[in-house]
Amino acid sequence: MTSSPRLSGLPQVEPLEQTLGSELQHVIDTKTKPPGSLGRLETLARQMGLIQRTTHPAVQRPALIVFAGDHGIAAEGVSPYPQAVTAQMVANFLAGGAAVNALSRVAGIELEVVNAGIATPLPRTDGLVDIPVGAGTRNFAHEPAMTHEQALSAMQAGAARVRHHAALGSNVIGFGEMGIANTSAAACLMSRICGVPIDECVGRGTGLDDAGLAKKRSVLAAALAHHDASTAPLDVLATFGGFEIAMMAGAYLAAAQARMTILVDGFIASSALLVANAIAPDVREYCVFAHASNEAGHRRMLDYFGAQPLLSLDMRLGEGTGAALAVPLLRAACAFINEMASFESAGVANREA
Amino acid sequence: MTSSPRLSGLPQVEPLEQTLGSELQHVIDTKTKPPGSLGRLETLARQMGLIQRTTHPAVQRPALIVFAGDHGIAAEGVSPYPQAVTAQMVANFLAGGAAVNALSRVAGIELEVVNAGIATPLPRTDGLVDIPVGAGTRNFAHEPAMTHEQALSAMQAGAARVRHHAALGSNVIGFGEMGIANTSAAACLMSRICGVPIDECVGRGTGLDDAGLAKKRSVLAAALAHHDASTAPLDVLATFGGFEIAMMAGAYLAAAQARMTILVDGFIASSALLVANAIAPDVREYCVFAHASNEAGHRRMLDYFGAQPLLSLDMRLGEGTGAALAVPLLRAACAFINEMASFESAGVANREA
Repeated sequence: MTSSPRLSGLPQVEPLEQTLGSELQHVIDTKTKPPGSLGRLETLARQMGLIQRTTHPAVQRPALIVFAGDHGIAAEGVSPYPQAVTAQMVANFLAGGAAVNALSRVAGIELEVVNAGIATPLPRTDGLVDIPVGAGTRNFAHEPAMTHEQALSAMQAGAARVRHHAALGSNVIGFGEMGIANTSAAACLMSRICGVPIDECVGRGTGLDDAGLAKKRSVLAAALAHHDASTAPLDVLATFGGFEIAMMAGAYLAAAQARMTILVDGFIASSALLVANAIAPDVREYCVFAHASNEAGHRRMLDYFGAQPLLSLDMRLGEGTGAALAVPLLRAACAFINEMASFESAGVANREA
Repeated sequence: MTSSPRLSGLPQVEPLEQTLGSELQHVIDTKTKPPGSLGRLETLARQMGLIQRTTHPAVQRPALIVFAGDHGIAAEGVSPYPQAVTAQMVANFLAGGAAVNALSRVAGIELEVVNAGIATPLPRTDGLVDIPVGAGTRNFAHEPAMTHEQALSAMQAGAARVRHHAALGSNVIGFGEMGIANTSAAACLMSRICGVPIDECVGRGTGLDDAGLAKKRSVLAAALAHHDASTAPLDVLATFGGFEIAMMAGAYLAAAQARMTILVDGFIASSALLVANAIAPDVREYCVFAHASNEAGHRRMLDYFGAQPLLSLDMRLGEGTGAALAVPLLRAACAFINEMASFESAGVANREA
């Protein structure tokens, strides 16, 4: 992985300001509980306090953006579902019937659906943010999935969607995706960016059988070999990525720039973060890794980030469903740091000695 | 562990009715998602459907009861906090300033605080369910912590609190606890009931140092040897338990009898479940193990139950804090099974072949 010069026009990410760190830790440590006994909730409260630059962090208007796009590589038979399902699932999102709808509603999350570049005409578009970069990517078994211009344009479009929500008051945001064959794109991004053999990056996706898995591996290994000169972040994204993945990559950068707490979903969402992280490594400090997906390769991706996911629920759906489930944990972290009494204020004796 | 005859006066637990199992699985499998891709949410929805005997399970008036009691074993110096902290923390619960208050409020959980048997006079009692079995247990280093009559009376009192909440419409309930030195009681219950050497059951509790940990191990090993004839469930409970633990044990049985979904908190709460489970093993099927505590021994206790906890957040606070964090996951499970479209209703193509 060669390091990348700053890409013009993309959001600039500042390192996370650490000034309030010791004050936050003091507030956390004087709450009426044994030190450290709230575990990950304590580190979450601290991280959110640093991001929001306050000892009273809050979850405000949490938002989830689902980016949908199609992939030319689907033509190689790497998914058990037909490509038309991407558009059908977007219609399902818009009708409120998908998993991410149910999980967003129950957790009080604002949900937005973006057509980043679907191949099939959409049966309905009410409520859709319809900003496709193209009608699906090209088949990267043979040629790059998109041009550099398309990749940059998609990243900027994703960043603009984040700014929209920041302007409406959101300070927590997550990103989900839909795109038949996008585990293939994500596996290639992972293999090239992390330097991990493709076989360790490829999983069953939505449910390939053994023969399907073997075929997917073989197709992707050949594609990686075909594009062995692509190593710079934007190159890798353009070669193997999808329009939804490129929009997510830009969205991460914009969210960190806006000092939002970023909920990272599963395998695809993390692959987009690999791209953003390669461009601006400081983005990592604004991220909360919501869950460990059951898709093979995601654990190793988390290790690459040095990340411990909040949830391990054997999920592998995408759409942002893991990110949605983490929002109540952020609310809990804010609740304890804002509402708990201190030993002194509650008149509770602290430890002996 | 000898098996126990049914104890008169305690709630009778029926095995979980499995009739709806295949119908529930069909509903889950025809939702617009790859089969199994919602992981643990799917098994939760199924379990709640079986418990509630419906394909439309719901979380209604979730409740959390915190039982507080003191332990004579505290006189042996097994905790770094003085015994007075039990009463001080109960005052903190009643004032709304403890961790479980903050986490219950943010998750919309009804919180009840019960004086199961605190040694110190309470500084205030507004809002307290004040039903102590005694002013703390006896020191089990020398004599049984309580009589059989006290143990049974506490179990019945805990069961009555659950029936109160069931009558108010709660169908999800969790139990928390407060009691200086109660990790010592729980470790002895675990060692005797699970047949695990005491050193593998003893942890640092609220934060013992190495010397304190060594002393705790030595005190508890001697106590177990001193009471080597206690093996029947009620015997073990009376010998090593606490009033709050005994109330929890009865509460589990009543909750299962009332067909409530039971959220199991951490190390102490699980030790009370060991007792309930030894009396009525069917209680297990109504339980959702909310989290894995960082207290040494809890993972092994979970293994004993064959349980996979929902959350692993490095927490070790007790109070029911882990149970409180799991409520949003139950709501998410109900949301997906009730609100998601099916492939057919949404017009989404299912897998090829």
